[in-house]
Amino acid sequence: MKALVFVTLKSGVLDPQGKAIHHSAESLGFAGINDIRQGKYFEIFLDPSLDEAAAFAEATRLASEILANPVIEDYRVEIVK
Amino acid sequence: MKALVFVTLKSGVLDPQGKAIHHSAESLGFAGINDIRQGKYFEIFLDPSLDEAAAFAEATRLASEILANPVIEDYRVEIVK
Repeated sequence: MKALVFVTLKSGVLDPQGKAIHHSAESLGFAGINDIRQGKYFEIFLDPSLDEAAAFAEATRLASEILANPVIEDYRVEIVK
Repeated sequence: MKALVFVTLKSGVLDPQGKAIHHSAESLGFAGINDIRQGKYFEIFLDPSLDEAAAFAEATRLASEILANPVIEDYRVEIVK
């Protein structure tokens, strides 16, 4: 079983990396892009013996304690079978 | 309209950052985790005047030309309305 964790900056937090990518994209002629924000993405391969609820709980604890900084970041966990 | 781009290392490519996170998680007592791989995640806010096909095409071109290194990375694009 696999858990996907998406970590994004909270909406009020400045994202200079995203701004730099947006600026580069505009310089290279990409049109129609209003904004870009960068986040992090983790694939967590879990022991197949865990059931879905336990896998979700473990991945959520990992996300909140290790992967995300809750002061400035939000996270979202998805379980993929 | 928003496009989500997921960039991951190709499966044969070593991911030292993921390995370090996995090792930390084990030291901190997380059980049942077989492997962790880290990727990148981008939210691209597109002009609402683009239709879904145009938005997908633009985000895919951005992913392949700027966001991912096709030598070692794969990418996946999703459109969210």
